[in-house]
Amino acid sequence: MTPSTAGPAPSDAAPGSPADSPLVRAARQQPVPFTPVWFMRQAGRSLPEYREVRQGVPMLQACRTPDLVAEITLQPVRRHGVDAAIFFSDIVVPLQAVGVDLDIVPGTGPVVAEPFRTRADLDRLPELDPAAIEDIAEAVRLTVAELGGTPLIGFAGAPFTLASYLVEGGPSRHHEHTKALMHRDPGLWHDLCARLAQISAAFLRVQVGAGASAVQLFDSWVGALSRADYVTHVQPHSRTVLEGVADLGVPRIHFGVGTGELLADMAEAGTEVIGVDYRLTLTEAVRRTGGRYAVQGNLDPALLFAPWEPLERRVREIVAEGREAPGHIFNLGHGVLPDTDPTVLTRVVELVHEISAR
Amino acid sequence: MTPSTAGPAPSDAAPGSPADSPLVRAARQQPVPFTPVWFMRQAGRSLPEYREVRQGVPMLQACRTPDLVAEITLQPVRRHGVDAAIFFSDIVVPLQAVGVDLDIVPGTGPVVAEPFRTRADLDRLPELDPAAIEDIAEAVRLTVAELGGTPLIGFAGAPFTLASYLVEGGPSRHHEHTKALMHRDPGLWHDLCARLAQISAAFLRVQVGAGASAVQLFDSWVGALSRADYVTHVQPHSRTVLEGVADLGVPRIHFGVGTGELLADMAEAGTEVIGVDYRLTLTEAVRRTGGRYAVQGNLDPALLFAPWEPLERRVREIVAEGREAPGHIFNLGHGVLPDTDPTVLTRVVELVHEISAR
Repeated sequence: MTPSTAGPAPSDAAPGSPADSPLVRAARQQPVPFTPVWFMRQAGRSLPEYREVRQGVPMLQACRTPDLVAEITLQPVRRHGVDAAIFFSDIVVPLQAVGVDLDIVPGTGPVVAEPFRTRADLDRLPELDPAAIEDIAEAVRLTVAELGGTPLIGFAGAPFTLASYLVEGGPSRHHEHTKALMHRDPGLWHDLCARLAQISAAFLRVQVGAGASAVQLFDSWVGALSRADYVTHVQPHSRTVLEGVADLGVPRIHFGVGTGELLADMAEAGTEVIGVDYRLTLTEAVRRTGGRYAVQGNLDPALLFAPWEPLERRVREIVAEGREAPGHIFNLGHGVLPDTDPTVLTRVVELVHEISAR
Repeated sequence: MTPSTAGPAPSDAAPGSPADSPLVRAARQQPVPFTPVWFMRQAGRSLPEYREVRQGVPMLQACRTPDLVAEITLQPVRRHGVDAAIFFSDIVVPLQAVGVDLDIVPGTGPVVAEPFRTRADLDRLPELDPAAIEDIAEAVRLTVAELGGTPLIGFAGAPFTLASYLVEGGPSRHHEHTKALMHRDPGLWHDLCARLAQISAAFLRVQVGAGASAVQLFDSWVGALSRADYVTHVQPHSRTVLEGVADLGVPRIHFGVGTGELLADMAEAGTEVIGVDYRLTLTEAVRRTGGRYAVQGNLDPALLFAPWEPLERRVREIVAEGREAPGHIFNLGHGVLPDTDPTVLTRVVELVHEISAR
């Protein structure tokens, strides 16, 4: 899978349109006027304006209310001047949309009423019909209408991470029931992940269809796997998702936490941009992926709690390393932590733009 | 730092003594009759006999009661026939011993009453006087008297992991206050870690002085660091601990979770055995550490929840990979999970012994 599969050449893009934006151009390994920057979890609890609009609104309800989703998605673009919006949602929203009985419990995360562990449980996981998420399409349209030339990145969870929530019944540190199922009944595991791949791809297709200019597939938990398990049991299903959106002509970003050992396999699942954890240098990430992919990352979000001087030093190092990559989108190596001072994020955006200007 | 620094040659060891045991021999890269095996967290909640003796006894009280520590340390040796005991304790016991106000809260872990974040806080962290942990020495003596030729591995946490508990005030996913302190005030950070290195080394020296035949330094959280941060801010202090026990003539094991990127640096901090996470193959771990260290690991503890057939296949692979290493101690790539069926652990021990017999 080479980057060239991702749709029309950038020369087709109208100047100033999202398809001609620094983010999309960097993803396509095209020249950019400066290094584009956005932050995973830039929309969310670090922003007072987010906490205000979320008051009294449960997470899943927020994710299914188009004008609220659009407002939350736009907030960090307005405040920080980032070069992309990331569609505000939760990884389990498409599971809820197909009828899985789940809730998002504050302080815990997604909780699935009845964990999925048998073949009979597959009956509780129908395919995702785009008509069931018309509110998602509407939220994307509202957002894109406000964004102008700034691209919106569509969001979905990858099959392994979705499966872990379903099999464990919620967030898990060790994923033991998920791994046990994978090895106990590989046939059931593959059928479960094939279903989840359809759901994930359909969720992304709806967002691109409504105007998203890129997509990011989050495999949050996949760093918990050995490489052998990843290649046999997970990569084929992530590939289904990524290939399932390849015809849409938007660049794809593939990211997971703690994935140094899996990076080449995740890239080869079919992506233009490989997201890099802060544990690995961008230089090493480029080496491990054969210099064939743009990279995204990789500031340690904990460094945002340090004083400006060491933070600035690290940002400069990352921008310098990114210059040697085929393409570079500046980001964190993990999501924004809730207690982060948002003024620091704004300052990082300004610094990246300033020092990377060509 | 080469493995040859660790005390007397094995030829000095009396046949059948702990110093001549397969575990110690494997650590010293000497021939062994079979691959020695033990499990991190083998003593603990997976065993019904442990849950029984712990009934009504708070964790820290258990750790400071010599006959109970000896009983708990011996339980997995009796039950599983493992080739080493690991001293039962908690990573914060030496901190409590120097007077830090902390408790271990069931379901949460260690909670420090007042987090350490300023230079004045160093006053609350005196050096560890061996006389303050005479109960630890007594527990080791009681254990060793029962173990016969089976070696006891002494246990301590490494400075970074101890610092994280102190600075965060408890277990942390992102260690943001710890990393912020490291970058905000490197001088204070180094002074804090130097103090912790003294405490950690003293805790190990007491255990070896009372009869432990090896030591393991656990840097549980260190996989959360970038390599640059590890080398600058952590490795020097782990080296102080490891060099601080080098004269005792027992092999040293150094382990952390998710440390694929740090493995060579952790080995070079001064150890005979490098513990390997399940995310990396032993073959790759040997390559990354230049073939100069014995390896310990690396079965994914979640696989103990899978049926026997895939589990057996994986155990056979690990034993085969271990044959190509300079020395191999079979273990998990992380601790035993509390819900593990202990009969499976016993079966793994039998299998490793059977298939590795020379």
